[in-house]
Amino acid sequence: MNRRMILYMPLQIIKLQAVVMLIPAAIGFIYHEKSAMSFVWCAAGALAVSFAVSALIHPQYKKIYAKEGFVIVALTWVLMSVLGAMPFVISGEIPSFADALFESVSGFTTTGASILRDVEAMSRGMLFWRSFTHWLGGMGILVFVMAIVNLSDTPIHIMRAEMPGPIVGKLAPKAKQTAKILYILYIALTVLEIIFLKFGGMTLFESTVHALATAGTGGFGIKNTSVGGYSPYIQWVITVFMALFGVNFNVYFLLTAGKIKSVLKSSEMWMYFGIMAAGTGIIIYNTSSFYENISDLIRHSAFQVSSIMTTTGFSTTDFNKWPGFSKAVLMFLMVCGACAGSTAGGLKVSRIQILIKALHREFTKMAHPRSVSVLRLEGRPLDEGVINNCLTYFVLYCIINVVCIFLISVDKFNLETSISATLACINNIGPAFGAAGPCGNYADFSVFSKLVLAAGMLLGRLEIFPVLLAVSPATWVKK
Amino acid sequence: MNRRMILYMPLQIIKLQAVVMLIPAAIGFIYHEKSAMSFVWCAAGALAVSFAVSALIHPQYKKIYAKEGFVIVALTWVLMSVLGAMPFVISGEIPSFADALFESVSGFTTTGASILRDVEAMSRGMLFWRSFTHWLGGMGILVFVMAIVNLSDTPIHIMRAEMPGPIVGKLAPKAKQTAKILYILYIALTVLEIIFLKFGGMTLFESTVHALATAGTGGFGIKNTSVGGYSPYIQWVITVFMALFGVNFNVYFLLTAGKIKSVLKSSEMWMYFGIMAAGTGIIIYNTSSFYENISDLIRHSAFQVSSIMTTTGFSTTDFNKWPGFSKAVLMFLMVCGACAGSTAGGLKVSRIQILIKALHREFTKMAHPRSVSVLRLEGRPLDEGVINNCLTYFVLYCIINVVCIFLISVDKFNLETSISATLACINNIGPAFGAAGPCGNYADFSVFSKLVLAAGMLLGRLEIFPVLLAVSPATWVKK
Repeated sequence: MNRRMILYMPLQIIKLQAVVMLIPAAIGFIYHEKSAMSFVWCAAGALAVSFAVSALIHPQYKKIYAKEGFVIVALTWVLMSVLGAMPFVISGEIPSFADALFESVSGFTTTGASILRDVEAMSRGMLFWRSFTHWLGGMGILVFVMAIVNLSDTPIHIMRAEMPGPIVGKLAPKAKQTAKILYILYIALTVLEIIFLKFGGMTLFESTVHALATAGTGGFGIKNTSVGGYSPYIQWVITVFMALFGVNFNVYFLLTAGKIKSVLKSSEMWMYFGIMAAGTGIIIYNTSSFYENISDLIRHSAFQVSSIMTTTGFSTTDFNKWPGFSKAVLMFLMVCGACAGSTAGGLKVSRIQILIKALHREFTKMAHPRSVSVLRLEGRPLDEGVINNCLTYFVLYCIINVVCIFLISVDKFNLETSISATLACINNIGPAFGAAGPCGNYADFSVFSKLVLAAGMLLGRLEIFPVLLAVSPATWVKK
Repeated sequence: MNRRMILYMPLQIIKLQAVVMLIPAAIGFIYHEKSAMSFVWCAAGALAVSFAVSALIHPQYKKIYAKEGFVIVALTWVLMSVLGAMPFVISGEIPSFADALFESVSGFTTTGASILRDVEAMSRGMLFWRSFTHWLGGMGILVFVMAIVNLSDTPIHIMRAEMPGPIVGKLAPKAKQTAKILYILYIALTVLEIIFLKFGGMTLFESTVHALATAGTGGFGIKNTSVGGYSPYIQWVITVFMALFGVNFNVYFLLTAGKIKSVLKSSEMWMYFGIMAAGTGIIIYNTSSFYENISDLIRHSAFQVSSIMTTTGFSTTDFNKWPGFSKAVLMFLMVCGACAGSTAGGLKVSRIQILIKALHREFTKMAHPRSVSVLRLEGRPLDEGVINNCLTYFVLYCIINVVCIFLISVDKFNLETSISATLACINNIGPAFGAAGPCGNYADFSVFSKLVLAAGMLLGRLEIFPVLLAVSPATWVKK
């Protein structure tokens, strides 16, 4: 265990975070908001502490292995969330630290679950910061750092730990290049959405915060009705961009490289769009009596499906009032999630593909005990290790969900609320059903439940293993 | 596919079932019940049809493979349940066929979920038949047939498909001998319980039906209050015997062979008793304000834990009124189940042990990517195929549960009822919470939900794969 590096690396990220916190500060100053100074204080404090501590522990030996990689990622995310919560507390806009931490974790993990009863009362600097945490957390802040500097000899471990999905595709031979390509694509798509939203009449501020929250598949809005008050054009733009940010970024890389044929062969992408289309179709059919005209019906159905499946969590209508069957479909989409290698949460479509293939192989094996078969995904053979990892991930995922439901059941909400709030947090969606529905919020949960749900968000965003490895005593015992 | 054998073998079981149906008929005649004749008519009809059809299709070629084995088991259980339902319908004691089928499936699968609002109104012949189906289904009726005749060259396939748990231990070199040993132990333990119950003042009829239902870990009682009205002595006897029937029968075989050391090394047995003791302790602590004196508190807690964990489903108190935390513990025990190789349902303790080991290995692999390790259970190395089977079984188990919950949600019970009823049926327990609690029943579910739950019971009892293989088109297509 390289203990110095485990503390050193997260502090480097904290320095970077302190610097980027000057962006919401600047926005606050532009709008003459008092709260702008809280970003400056936080940034200054964080820089001072992290420079001091890194100077003290400056590691000579920089090599890290897989184990350290996981711990670094988990620790970074915790520190980042704590620092991210400070401006809310210092400015007094979210006075309770537990609430502020919930909001910050919800931001970085791209969940978008909020404890705010009245989001419109927040200052613009804070609103920008909430959306910006989505954007930073979406693609992974460590990946971002890797794109600009070379901190370690083996950064692929970190990328594996921070990137969602069962397999991390290397787009380029080196991890640094891959990270750079990912961020260039990410920025390009975000800017494109800003332009489209601006074109629909939004101010630069509005279009930017919405684009940042869409890009990270986060879901923090700036209105109490989320995206419900905007024009149909805006809602359609966001529907499309949410769906686009749920696609594996590998696909965009192949597109820019002109490899259209490879793109068309992506079975994950097809299944993703297939499930989305099917979900929309079912909900259109099931909610047809809820809307007066067909264009509203189609728009609301498509928006909600795109939002939930990509685990964004924006809403244009109170889907908590939809019939039980539509809510069941939404719950399935919550668990399913979007593509691996995107900014979305959930199990990921490719993991579901692998699970289905593994089940199918098991059936074949039971019927024909001597059969041997190698599973393939997107034409390439799947390593048995990856299959095993998907299966064990699923087991862990179920355990974590059940434990979380049990723990928050103490709050005496009904079971629908407890279950859907757990799913909405662990899968990084945001709004759930019942008390935590799109017109409600997480304010009424106890402090204990808020902390449990925040832990669930982190577990979901980092795909469980890194967090559990970091807190496992076995990781820390010297052999 | 040996299609003739697939029909031929289930018909042989039906003949046997027709013969054993004369036992409840005899009991009915002893008590001068009109309904006794309905057993005779069913037996006669079943014998006539099965002799006629088997003569027609008499297969020349008797060899069967794994695939046929699964289909035979699934088909046998369906036919057996249909025939088992007929006396209820013909006698008019359960006029609706859907209800009768639910009761019959619930009996054979050792679930013990009932649609009867007033079980005390049933005739003694019918009450005996309900308990007897538990006993027949508990150890497996095909296993029983194997114990007395040699129907096929490869009966181990059938045993694998019908016996619960991830690994079927061969107690003797030949499957037939193994089956014989199992049934001798099963009968011996059942008779022992009858004697103990008789000693507590029960009539021979009462002690026999309760022993049969305990042995199969079924749970059909003959009183509306289940075992609640009997003396503390009787309740303790049943508590102990339920726990005993949840132990892997391998343990009893080793005991009779004098291999005490091997018994003490059984990690599954220790974990099973450990979970049971822990569950009882937690519930004693959590429900202490519910009972007036400590002996009631301990007895009710121990009884309910033993009943739910062994998936029997008898009750002595309305545990639906227990605090949420105790109900959560019971739900965990429902899913957990007892030991493999017993008559219990649920995931089985050894499967949970394998899942935990697989998770632990995955963690080690993530922290040390080059590590290689072989998992061991009870001192012996675990085949990778078994581990994979456990993992895929868990995935399937979750899918089946979720689908079942969705389907019965149409009935508009609250989520607690839908979830617990599903768990109670798929894990073959019987009573659940809410409307389907120990003081309620399944009468108010729609016909559709009853059929879904009955299918769930069969899936749970046969551990999913055989049923799904039997209905999969791929099994039936000629290659």
